Amino acid sequence: MILLALLLAAPPPPIPTAPPSPTDIAASAPPSAWRPIPPENLLLLETPRGTLAIELAPDFAPAHIAAIKSLIAQGRFNGGNITRVQDNYVVQWAARPAPQGTPKPAPLPAEYERPAAGLTITPLGNPDTYAEAGFANGWPVAQDKTTNTAWLAHCYAAVGVGRDNPPDTGDGSELYAVIGHAPRHLDRNITVVGRVVEGLPAYASLPRGTGDIGFYKTPAEYTPITRVRLAANIPGAPRFEVMDTTSKTFADYKAARANRTGFFIRPAAAVDLCNVQVPVRRAK
Amino acid sequence: MILLALLLAAPPPPIPTAPPSPTDIAASAPPSAWRPIPPENLLLLETPRGTLAIELAPDFAPAHIAAIKSLIAQGRFNGGNITRVQDNYVVQWAARPAPQGTPKPAPLPAEYERPAAGLTITPLGNPDTYAEAGFANGWPVAQDKTTNTAWLAHCYAAVGVGRDNPPDTGDGSELYAVIGHAPRHLDRNITVVGRVVEGLPAYASLPRGTGDIGFYKTPAEYTPITRVRLAANIPGAPRFEVMDTTSKTFADYKAARANRTGFFIRPAAAVDLCNVQVPVRRAK
Repeated sequence: MILLALLLAAPPPPIPTAPPSPTDIAASAPPSAWRPIPPENLLLLETPRGTLAIELAPDFAPAHIAAIKSLIAQGRFNGGNITRVQDNYVVQWAARPAPQGTPKPAPLPAEYERPAAGLTITPLGNPDTYAEAGFANGWPVAQDKTTNTAWLAHCYAAVGVGRDNPPDTGDGSELYAVIGHAPRHLDRNITVVGRVVEGLPAYASLPRGTGDIGFYKTPAEYTPITRVRLAANIPGAPRFEVMDTTSKTFADYKAARANRTGFFIRPAAAVDLCNVQVPVRRAK
Repeated sequence: MILLALLLAAPPPPIPTAPPSPTDIAASAPPSAWRPIPPENLLLLETPRGTLAIELAPDFAPAHIAAIKSLIAQGRFNGGNITRVQDNYVVQWAARPAPQGTPKPAPLPAEYERPAAGLTITPLGNPDTYAEAGFANGWPVAQDKTTNTAWLAHCYAAVGVGRDNPPDTGDGSELYAVIGHAPRHLDRNITVVGRVVEGLPAYASLPRGTGDIGFYKTPAEYTPITRVRLAANIPGAPRFEVMDTTSKTFADYKAARANRTGFFIRPAAAVDLCNVQVPVRRAK
């Protein structure tokens, strides 16, 4: 009886609480853990499938992004088409051809990598098959410390510039978004200009192309592009924020991605670059 | 004149030939580089989207695969549904509920990993973020040399057994296929029973689920399953072959995946486990 009374008088054992999930961490991130996406770097592509919102990365590909912005200003994407959907790879779209007589633009400089100097790279902290991996200003990046260069990694949702064979680097009139397992073999072989921040599921579920490497065989299969604009030119355009990858919140988020709990019985204790998925949210 | 004559008499310079691409290597692989998929391990799932052909891996998950074969024999998948499509993650389907009064089957043993003994593992030869990676009998695998265990990796097209929270391991009545970036955090947390060998693009392009984590909110959105059968029970069923991952051809294929040529200006000199994609073909 005394023993029982003592037991009853003891403080109750703590209720076990699950550590916060990656989703929990993103949902409760403080305002300081987010950086806004500048509206001049937010491309909005509209088709009957919905709006695809793409953050552009001028710190990595300024010349190609200037070319894309020029094409947008000329209205060249309006009336363009989604011409290719290759399963486990890419969805690709093309601007309208230049009007007859338009002088061919000068070739753009290769922007496959850039000096690492000037970037704050937060290391992934796990081995990467291809390079040293990390995050810079909210972007998944890889780097080569022998050449002191860095580049955007081809993760799910990365947006790149289609090109012909080298030395062509593309003129920005054909772009693609990754919709499959990260095709990291494309890193440093194609200019990455950004990533989709909203709307990709409706495009990743487009019917796969009927021809070679996912190109549609006939224009009747294309998804027509209504228009492409920059958010900076649209009053009331949606605004987005990306998690600051130098923040403690992001470190917690990355650790929680590597050490899943709840449903998981054996946390991986590691996570690969493209399985981290830097959080993006609509600005409040 | 004499010089020109000499030059003309010299043998013509060799025409530069590109090294064979991964596709070339698979296309010209000798018959000895392939192993057949036994028809008793080939599951054929039919819906209005087409036939999904899945190779089962009883060397890795014998109990769960026996349970799946039992459900097939009972016709439990016929009239089932695709109930979940989560972007960059999985497409998932469910058998019909068991008839009322059916005794609940005994829980299955966990088959999250198996002894490495008895497997011939060809190393990937590149760092893997999660474990030591390689290939066993045509399957992408990872292993832990401290515990001498190995497991099937969650690459694109991997098929696993849905489950509730631990210690439940699933009963085989809910299965999923990976349609996004390899969710390797699921390795050793869910039983992988095989992989899709044909038909996945039509399923990876299904509309994404309208509810939480990609479940459709209403049954009206489901894709109905017409029937599920084993190829062994179908006269004239398609037959498939998987590349023998111990063959020289596969070694060449893997090297070519790591060192892309032609379009590529800077071969990665490495390739991650799930970016190799072991070739599968229809048997001739």
